[in-house]
Amino acid sequence: MPQIGDSLPMLRFHQTPSVLCLKSVGIICEGKKIRFGEFEFASSLYFSYSRSFKPKSLDDMSNPLFDLETLKAELAGQNPRAILKAALEYFHNLAVSFSGAEDVVLVDMASRLKPGISVFCLDTGRLHPETYRFIEKVRERYDINLEVLNPAYQELESLVKEKGLFSFHGDGHTECCGIRKVGPLRRRLATLDAWITGQRRDQNPTRLELDEVGLDSAFSTPENVLYKFNPLAKWTSAQVWDYIEAYDVPYNELHRKGFVSIGCEPCTRPILPNQHERSGRWWWEDAAKKECGLHAGNLHKGK
Amino acid sequence: MPQIGDSLPMLRFHQTPSVLCLKSVGIICEGKKIRFGEFEFASSLYFSYSRSFKPKSLDDMSNPLFDLETLKAELAGQNPRAILKAALEYFHNLAVSFSGAEDVVLVDMASRLKPGISVFCLDTGRLHPETYRFIEKVRERYDINLEVLNPAYQELESLVKEKGLFSFHGDGHTECCGIRKVGPLRRRLATLDAWITGQRRDQNPTRLELDEVGLDSAFSTPENVLYKFNPLAKWTSAQVWDYIEAYDVPYNELHRKGFVSIGCEPCTRPILPNQHERSGRWWWEDAAKKECGLHAGNLHKGK
Amino acid sequence: MPQIGDSLPMLRFHQTPSVLCLKSVGIICEGKKIRFGEFEFASSLYFSYSRSFKPKSLDDMSNPLFDLETLKAELAGQNPRAILKAALEYFHNLAVSFSGAEDVVLVDMASRLKPGISVFCLDTGRLHPETYRFIEKVRERYDINLEVLNPAYQELESLVKEKGLFSFHGDGHTECCGIRKVGPLRRRLATLDAWITGQRRDQNPTRLELDEVGLDSAFSTPENVLYKFNPLAKWTSAQVWDYIEAYDVPYNELHRKGFVSIGCEPCTRPILPNQHERSGRWWWEDAAKKECGLHAGNLHKGK
Amino acid sequence: MPQIGDSLPMLRFHQTPSVLCLKSVGIICEGKKIRFGEFEFASSLYFSYSRSFKPKSLDDMSNPLFDLETLKAELAGQNPRAILKAALEYFHNLAVSFSGAEDVVLVDMASRLKPGISVFCLDTGRLHPETYRFIEKVRERYDINLEVLNPAYQELESLVKEKGLFSFHGDGHTECCGIRKVGPLRRRLATLDAWITGQRRDQNPTRLELDEVGLDSAFSTPENVLYKFNPLAKWTSAQVWDYIEAYDVPYNELHRKGFVSIGCEPCTRPILPNQHERSGRWWWEDAAKKECGLHAGNLHKGK
Repeated sequence: MPQIGDSLPMLRFHQTPSVLCLKSVGIICEGKKIRFGEFEFASSLYFSYSRSFKPKSLDDMSNPLFDLETLKAELAGQNPRAILKAALEYFHNLAVSFSGAEDVVLVDMASRLKPGISVFCLDTGRLHPETYRFIEKVRERYDINLEVLNPAYQELESLVKEKGLFSFHGDGHTECCGIRKVGPLRRRLATLDAWITGQRRDQNPTRLELDEVGLDSAFSTPENVLYKFNPLAKWTSAQVWDYIEAYDVPYNELHRKGFVSIGCEPCTRPILPNQHERSGRWWWEDAAKKECGLHAGNLHKGK
Repeated sequence: MPQIGDSLPMLRFHQTPSVLCLKSVGIICEGKKIRFGEFEFASSLYFSYSRSFKPKSLDDMSNPLFDLETLKAELAGQNPRAILKAALEYFHNLAVSFSGAEDVVLVDMASRLKPGISVFCLDTGRLHPETYRFIEKVRERYDINLEVLNPAYQELESLVKEKGLFSFHGDGHTECCGIRKVGPLRRRLATLDAWITGQRRDQNPTRLELDEVGLDSAFSTPENVLYKFNPLAKWTSAQVWDYIEAYDVPYNELHRKGFVSIGCEPCTRPILPNQHERSGRWWWEDAAKKECGLHAGNLHKGK
Repeated sequence: MPQIGDSLPMLRFHQTPSVLCLKSVGIICEGKKIRFGEFEFASSLYFSYSRSFKPKSLDDMSNPLFDLETLKAELAGQNPRAILKAALEYFHNLAVSFSGAEDVVLVDMASRLKPGISVFCLDTGRLHPETYRFIEKVRERYDINLEVLNPAYQELESLVKEKGLFSFHGDGHTECCGIRKVGPLRRRLATLDAWITGQRRDQNPTRLELDEVGLDSAFSTPENVLYKFNPLAKWTSAQVWDYIEAYDVPYNELHRKGFVSIGCEPCTRPILPNQHERSGRWWWEDAAKKECGLHAGNLHKGK
Repeated sequence: MPQIGDSLPMLRFHQTPSVLCLKSVGIICEGKKIRFGEFEFASSLYFSYSRSFKPKSLDDMSNPLFDLETLKAELAGQNPRAILKAALEYFHNLAVSFSGAEDVVLVDMASRLKPGISVFCLDTGRLHPETYRFIEKVRERYDINLEVLNPAYQELESLVKEKGLFSFHGDGHTECCGIRKVGPLRRRLATLDAWITGQRRDQNPTRLELDEVGLDSAFSTPENVLYKFNPLAKWTSAQVWDYIEAYDVPYNELHRKGFVSIGCEPCTRPILPNQHERSGRWWWEDAAKKECGLHAGNLHKGK
């Protein structure tokens, strides 16, 4: 938390037009001026100071430390690298979410921008053997700090005892994803200020309005405001695969077996030529509900 | 069959110099004249009227019995069923070529238009097990007269003795395709007036100018003029797959394993998402040469 | 713990010749008589009273409530069903351990002897997809109370963060098995008086001296004495498979793909004809160490 | 061809009681004497001189040039290498039959004894992709003259046209094997004096009385007497696999997928642990009939 009197070098300034009002930390905006302790700046400057500058709670959202709408506008239509770069500038305490599939391009880009960056993926305990091998390959190839997150056994054992190992076929995937994916994810996100995902608009009808950046309403808590960057939001599958080929990025062997979108083994299947990639996921369910809970926010946007 | 006295409009005249001798239907060729009933025409006219009207040899080609250019123009942009229908009207002695892949839509359409239609496919001896099962499935499902053609052992044994079972990797696929595909095909085509293939423009750079119908310059012989219909020429892969889904047409299981274009097992592989389907065929060779000899004519068109 | 003066119905008598010496609970054996409080019985009777009759701790082992050596002798060479029956008579609080492989014969036998019997298996999070399907099949087929046990995420995440997903290749399988198998197993065994396993002598050089029953020195704790029954100890693989065929017992699909002994996916492989089944497990390690920790006791017997 | 006057060293004598009658080359048998040119021998000697000394026809069989019974007795219980060696001594015009499976040990042994030896295998056109890769591997690894034999298209096309690609399921495998295996084999064997096969007694109930050498009654013709050596007759599967491991002999990848006995793809399947290897072949047929025609002689022996 910057204090009045902190020395200047602790702040990183950017030339942006936003007007900040940071009274709580003794930073006062007056007209076009910002006063920080005894210093005064043109209000056309603004800055990120990672976590410290984030609103402390959702109650404080009326007063974000960076202006989300402005950032959205800035990033709209930018290329993934530019979006990643912005994410890394605005937030220090952030991590890339890697699903073990084509979103590896994010890992490739991010590790070049910031060696040693935090990357996490969710090991649901039901991934394909190929996916585990792929995750390990990525871990070995890139200069990243990879965490593989697992579900809590208590919840898992209780679900399986009651409903068996394939409850999703009868009851839908939400309950199982809730334990195997959302639980561990929520645990990790609670410690972050922002995360970076590989979601794309062309993946699913539920993702048609996906923005490059947003407040993560699904995983922000009263105690922790969470932002979500989607650097690939407007890339097409073709662009992702061009990148993979051009940069010789490793890919999941399953992509050589007809799989496009890849999730858990029992809930993923190869697709036919010209089928939509999402038809390979939870194919027994309605397309409009095909979010696993990681990006559940997408489901409610349309209405 | 035109009869003496048929009114003129039943015949479609074309400006060609061929001399016809159609005595059986009362059409007499005398010198450079044709008499049809009481009418007499310059022999520079010709017409098609199914088999009887086909030129008997390539020497006669300057004078085909139906005007290819007119037919081309008529069929240009027609839907596959219309093209198939025309093929079936113009030729009785024709067969559908089925490769064991998505061109099954042709078999589906053709068997509805003409139950018991001749269909042939080439069993190179190196197809995928899945492809044999698929061919059998098609044989059982449709009312067709299916022939499965095999190569001559003499040529095969001599090639393999000299170069082994994978000579195509070093020497290109032409020699092997020549024995396993082109030989048996040539044998069969020599007995036909026309054949129907599943080629599409979007399959390959070599097929960009593919027409709905053409003289098959590769397989016509001095003794036998051969026409080739490509009813799917202007369909996209997406249209083919829409048809397969809509009509519940059986498909090769390999399409569920990442395969799009399917040929012989050692020369076919699944493709990555967004790769061109032809990258799954003879991937060690140059894209511009990827014709197996069945449609070798495509290779020389561009120049 | 039965007390002198307990009423008779609390004891279940069996006609067996063993002589019990239960001084600590006031049961005295005198020659061929047993005195229990004021009652006196012929020593040809003996009884099980499940947990109550088990020694309360390892300190008490000098005085087990049933005589292990006698039971060993009785069960030596008995068929698996007889051994299972004895296990079920002596212990109420016991469970069958099912590994997702051929030990399904135990589940088949046990569920016939005692419908609703407790069965548990260890879901390490790295099983083959086929194994999950098989476990579910077994769950649906038999009248059993199946628990699927999972590892604790804290230990797992910390191992993987440090050493990745395939640490066993470099460091041996003990550490990984410790977290994924032994941890959850220990947790479950701590609540049991006895467990039933599918171990066989012919599986591994480490199992050559396996008995039908024994004190489980690896998982007994100062607070809980644990017995272990191995009803298949002296069966051969051939007998197991005869049973599977004769009783139409479901089996893991992997057995149709060359797998014999089945464990975790990265640590299991199909074997060649005539290879020893154990060569399909942890093949990069020395045969004499191939126990996963479940039956670690086997490793020290020989010395 | 030995001529009258050839010096003795050209002949190799063996102590056998057979009486030879080699008039055509000037060798006369008189009573118990053999005169060869001006030399005269006790008829208890006999010799092999490769093809020239073979009886010219079945009519001549009463008078074989080497005494089969003696050879049988000599080879009985010999190790495969000794049997191979004898075969190579007695016959120059012989070839090893290689099926693309574990009989590769024969190729390994034979190519060491006689570099450049003739080996043939039958490409039925329905082998597994893995088998073709394996055959090629063997071709590249050993100093052999490998021929891959194919069926005649006329018979194949006619069978398939009438009955489809899986007629063996309904009609039994004999007809299909007849065309795909026996035809090409017969063609090749007609040019040989002897062949060497990998048959073993333990493979099949039909092979229980298999000898190390015999007259091939199935493929001898009035014009050509054919002998058959089975060097592995008395080896067990375990011995074969010990050899493969000890000598680092390449093996068919299918052996890593649960396949033991390997034939055509649609007629071969992996077996379960402890199943007899032959249960993986033509499993819809009676075990006592499981010969493909190559060794049909085995079927009639028992009676």
